[in-house]
Amino acid sequence: MTRKISFSSDYTKGAHPEILQRLQETNYEQIDGYGTDDYCKSAADKIRAACDCKDADVFFLVGGTQTNQTIIDMLLEPYEGVVAAQTGHVAAHEAGAIEFSGHKVLTLPSIPEKSASSDAIYSDEIGKIRAEDLKKLLKDFYEDDNHEHMVFPGAVYISHPTEYGTLYTKSELGELSAICKEYEIPLFLDGARLGYGLMSRRTDVTLQDIAKLVDVFYIGGTKVGALFGEAVVFPGKVPTKHPVPIIKQHGALLAKGWLLGLMFDTLFTDDLYMDISRNAIDKAEKLREGLTEKGYQLYIDSPTNQQFILLEDDRLKELSEHVRYGFWEKPDENHTVIRLATDWATTDEDIEELMTYL
Amino acid sequence: MTRKISFSSDYTKGAHPEILQRLQETNYEQIDGYGTDDYCKSAADKIRAACDCKDADVFFLVGGTQTNQTIIDMLLEPYEGVVAAQTGHVAAHEAGAIEFSGHKVLTLPSIPEKSASSDAIYSDEIGKIRAEDLKKLLKDFYEDDNHEHMVFPGAVYISHPTEYGTLYTKSELGELSAICKEYEIPLFLDGARLGYGLMSRRTDVTLQDIAKLVDVFYIGGTKVGALFGEAVVFPGKVPTKHPVPIIKQHGALLAKGWLLGLMFDTLFTDDLYMDISRNAIDKAEKLREGLTEKGYQLYIDSPTNQQFILLEDDRLKELSEHVRYGFWEKPDENHTVIRLATDWATTDEDIEELMTYL
Amino acid sequence: MTRKISFSSDYTKGAHPEILQRLQETNYEQIDGYGTDDYCKSAADKIRAACDCKDADVFFLVGGTQTNQTIIDMLLEPYEGVVAAQTGHVAAHEAGAIEFSGHKVLTLPSIPEKSASSDAIYSDEIGKIRAEDLKKLLKDFYEDDNHEHMVFPGAVYISHPTEYGTLYTKSELGELSAICKEYEIPLFLDGARLGYGLMSRRTDVTLQDIAKLVDVFYIGGTKVGALFGEAVVFPGKVPTKHPVPIIKQHGALLAKGWLLGLMFDTLFTDDLYMDISRNAIDKAEKLREGLTEKGYQLYIDSPTNQQFILLEDDRLKELSEHVRYGFWEKPDENHTVIRLATDWATTDEDIEELMTYL
Amino acid sequence: MTRKISFSSDYTKGAHPEILQRLQETNYEQIDGYGTDDYCKSAADKIRAACDCKDADVFFLVGGTQTNQTIIDMLLEPYEGVVAAQTGHVAAHEAGAIEFSGHKVLTLPSIPEKSASSDAIYSDEIGKIRAEDLKKLLKDFYEDDNHEHMVFPGAVYISHPTEYGTLYTKSELGELSAICKEYEIPLFLDGARLGYGLMSRRTDVTLQDIAKLVDVFYIGGTKVGALFGEAVVFPGKVPTKHPVPIIKQHGALLAKGWLLGLMFDTLFTDDLYMDISRNAIDKAEKLREGLTEKGYQLYIDSPTNQQFILLEDDRLKELSEHVRYGFWEKPDENHTVIRLATDWATTDEDIEELMTYL
Repeated sequence: MTRKISFSSDYTKGAHPEILQRLQETNYEQIDGYGTDDYCKSAADKIRAACDCKDADVFFLVGGTQTNQTIIDMLLEPYEGVVAAQTGHVAAHEAGAIEFSGHKVLTLPSIPEKSASSDAIYSDEIGKIRAEDLKKLLKDFYEDDNHEHMVFPGAVYISHPTEYGTLYTKSELGELSAICKEYEIPLFLDGARLGYGLMSRRTDVTLQDIAKLVDVFYIGGTKVGALFGEAVVFPGKVPTKHPVPIIKQHGALLAKGWLLGLMFDTLFTDDLYMDISRNAIDKAEKLREGLTEKGYQLYIDSPTNQQFILLEDDRLKELSEHVRYGFWEKPDENHTVIRLATDWATTDEDIEELMTYL
Repeated sequence: MTRKISFSSDYTKGAHPEILQRLQETNYEQIDGYGTDDYCKSAADKIRAACDCKDADVFFLVGGTQTNQTIIDMLLEPYEGVVAAQTGHVAAHEAGAIEFSGHKVLTLPSIPEKSASSDAIYSDEIGKIRAEDLKKLLKDFYEDDNHEHMVFPGAVYISHPTEYGTLYTKSELGELSAICKEYEIPLFLDGARLGYGLMSRRTDVTLQDIAKLVDVFYIGGTKVGALFGEAVVFPGKVPTKHPVPIIKQHGALLAKGWLLGLMFDTLFTDDLYMDISRNAIDKAEKLREGLTEKGYQLYIDSPTNQQFILLEDDRLKELSEHVRYGFWEKPDENHTVIRLATDWATTDEDIEELMTYL
Repeated sequence: MTRKISFSSDYTKGAHPEILQRLQETNYEQIDGYGTDDYCKSAADKIRAACDCKDADVFFLVGGTQTNQTIIDMLLEPYEGVVAAQTGHVAAHEAGAIEFSGHKVLTLPSIPEKSASSDAIYSDEIGKIRAEDLKKLLKDFYEDDNHEHMVFPGAVYISHPTEYGTLYTKSELGELSAICKEYEIPLFLDGARLGYGLMSRRTDVTLQDIAKLVDVFYIGGTKVGALFGEAVVFPGKVPTKHPVPIIKQHGALLAKGWLLGLMFDTLFTDDLYMDISRNAIDKAEKLREGLTEKGYQLYIDSPTNQQFILLEDDRLKELSEHVRYGFWEKPDENHTVIRLATDWATTDEDIEELMTYL
Repeated sequence: MTRKISFSSDYTKGAHPEILQRLQETNYEQIDGYGTDDYCKSAADKIRAACDCKDADVFFLVGGTQTNQTIIDMLLEPYEGVVAAQTGHVAAHEAGAIEFSGHKVLTLPSIPEKSASSDAIYSDEIGKIRAEDLKKLLKDFYEDDNHEHMVFPGAVYISHPTEYGTLYTKSELGELSAICKEYEIPLFLDGARLGYGLMSRRTDVTLQDIAKLVDVFYIGGTKVGALFGEAVVFPGKVPTKHPVPIIKQHGALLAKGWLLGLMFDTLFTDDLYMDISRNAIDKAEKLREGLTEKGYQLYIDSPTNQQFILLEDDRLKELSEHVRYGFWEKPDENHTVIRLATDWATTDEDIEELMTYL
């Protein structure tokens, strides 16, 4: 089989070389297990500094679904569910991991009308929840006489970037945050691709803003330069006296927890996390320009590392001889929407090679 | 703080250098996610060959508690529990991960009378379940008129080596296997330290024996040369049509699943797994000889990489200035039992340094 | 407080007098517990005869949510969810009982466009799922490459009558049944108000039809003449070797199970269940005629015992001085939709009294 | 089949005639559902008065396992288990209902050495947990460095009378209560047979004592004069903001909740509950005297309504031609232990008839 260049996702490569280097260097150190080590402490300190949030509780988990499940289970009372976009990862693509923990996902609409006036098929509102929809859900719930027979909305989950690569504005995050505060429920931000959101050229949201506006979020490592790992940040405090047994009973406590500490320590030294995130954005913008020039129909005008285009199936067939891509959806018999994702390691040469096939 | 040599556990170091080497080499390959890649396929093939079990289902998970929880949940009907030693990891040290999945752990006694006649305080039966106890539990259950109001024993969990470093004989495994077959319940062997059991100088149990006698087991990587990872083997077949969503809903599906495949592919090339396991045994035997010579009281005469000794607390205090160890238990006011664990990377120099402090 | 006549629901009264009579007569008999008694056997036999389904498994539970939760948990694999109307009781009004058991509710739309051409605001399609929507959900699921990361649709839940009092036609049930058979998933019919559906003047569905077309259903007692209780019928067979411990672990195994047997034995003697169900329908039709005559705006033209009307709030305030009703929803600032429910014990005098206030 | 007198259990009959009478009288009242009615309020008030505990939270559930499961789930954090006697109902005979809710049962020994010096085989300590064992479990847990990897003891469950008919003394309850307070975990008393404990001739524990010493308990109705039902009392306050959805999601919210209110209102009017409980004790004492006179070997010298004797199997075979009894256990090939239970409705004639067969 000929090697094909892949833009299928942002988790197809290993780790930033500095991380591999440090694994090598520390390989025979003897380090305490379960995240109690000094690398985890150092990484947490650097993350607290980057978030400008010195009292934050920080801990490290292995993957996204695991993190979503564990955090949401920490946030909720047994009779509560989590509010999410119908397209949110926890609602759609985690095989029922939230329900496995006993909680309902209460969904809000997140696919807007097709945009007639724009170059893209959908506006960049796709994948996001709207403050007014959240407000209505909460208001309606508490006004319903019968609400003790219903699932209480106990937390709000958003992803940033969303599953569609779109971003909340600072003002939108502020609105969601205010509603959550009014109803005294925590706001949880899934940052599996957080770096690619923060480094977008079309965002006004900083890491410090997020730490101010949400109650818990995570900084994705799996998709942004680490072998694996997600750094969970509770800017206030973790809402349970004993997070360790909760993590453990979700099967999420890594024996060699220092691996996570070491990787995040590396990523949060000398702005490495931001620098490599910016690379993905630069390459994505280059790709988008190329696509636009060549007259491709954008699915959305994505501000982050995931680009989506609509293709005729014949055209796609040719492309697939040279390129691996992410299948997204099939809007009709003869067309397909595909995803092309850049990442921390994508090079200019990769984009140029891709453009030759497009 | 002065560096101290550590024998506290077998998961204090990174990975065998060949594994780091391959991570380096493959870092920029673009590999499919979720364990669907060729490294996982190759690793599974090599494991099937090593087990002499060509139809086995093999898959890879991240850590021990996660694996125990996921496998047991696959094996059991909702109304069933898992039988285990009272000292079994699933019974004692997983923060209720089995109950979190809705299942009871039905315990059998596993701490024998103290042995009067031996050099060690306990016989090497400690940590194991006995065929006769298992048989009695199953017989009593089905004879009880009221058993539909009780938790059905739906699977049997054993660890090999046990949490105390002890080993089942081939004949004992055969007996447990026969009882499980008679009652039509699966036998599950937790091999978090399997290499150290197989390479013991005092065992008649081979990997092929295990694949013949149990219904599912795993080959531990976290404690035996991998950064992390456990290879689950169903010699017959996995007892569910859809293992992937079950793994996913336990938060146990690693995005970059190929990391696991790559590590186990390395460990099962040219007998590396067995070779590095043998190293831990050689070092443990050397340690045990030294301990015996110096007149230390063994807690058990352990045939694997974990050695346990009883010390006066004053003596322990001195030792702890130079050596990190695993606290095990405090049998009285003035004595402590500690664990000294060797591993795949322990050197003769390590043992010699340790002996100077003992 | 003046006594007010109540049409707020169909579970405001005790039990049919014959049931109280038999409780009296059998009070000092000494009967075996947990549903193993002869009254349960006799009731099951009579139900099998009424269903024309001699091999059916029949058992008795206490209430609706409990029954839905227990049955659905019996039907599903851990990685499966249940498909239901967005307005279905299991989706909307059971406080997350399905998710508590670890399963997602996968919803289909069930509120049609407002009907312009009819006397009623909504057509009597409201509350039902449509065969084509179910088919699409199942087809889309299996065509999605990524479906192993999603919740498998493992059973279909419908209510008949629905929460809106509407009914499936025999042909509609047949279509849903055929799709379920094609995809090899069970069809579950919640019959909490089954009698009121079967005795509707506008149905072509019989009890025997239901037993032929669905895989499991229950015959509601709580709302139809019993103090409490639901009779679960598996026309084929119960999909677990051990239903008793599953029922027990859901807290649903009544010690004095014979009470349920006795009540259903009474209801299924001499067609009592059907006769008293017919009474509710007769009274509802009388009520509907009165409402129509007086020019009330029907919310739907309900064929069963629940009637829904739209009222101005001023008018409602007057009414509420004499009548208790069920609040349904508030479509705008000045109007309210209310429910008026008849039951097995409603009299002509009750309707006449109500009409004087309307 | 000839009618046989039954002493097999205390839940073989219907309800006290005053309860049937009130069901009759109130049958056509139209009462609000889900326990929001005036009968529930009145019953709760009377129970609060009887407990001398005016601020208690009181609510009503249907059966014992359901109550144990729901209450324990309310008391515990997700990472906590409940401590109970190995013979406790929640540990042994609820089909894993506690584990179904995600919690481990942490067991303490409760079968003492056989008593050599007494008339009975076991002392009346059987079935109880001992303060020193509880203290040791809690102390050991918190002293274990590794306890965050273990299940936290989060509540203590006792039954009074126990499953063996034995009783705690006031002093013993006080000790357990003091330990629970010291460790800040709630003490939960299962009173499925509470009346028979309170009316024992050999107890110094009153209902008011219980309300002072435990954090939550229930007053059993199913076995003491009601058709079904258990009254849950939190002398302090219920440990959740929203008990209703928790009850609902356990399938435990009875639609016609007033039935429970009505039954407990009757039982707590004019001391009916105590009077009928005393009847069971009087009959049990009469039975015990007869047994002793006839030289039967008592299993324990039970102070409550359950009497246990050891019989030769030949003798038992004769007895079983006339009497139904509860099988308890088979200590050897030729003997059986049986239970003979009196109840609120047992008559002198019943005992006299039984004695003719013994």
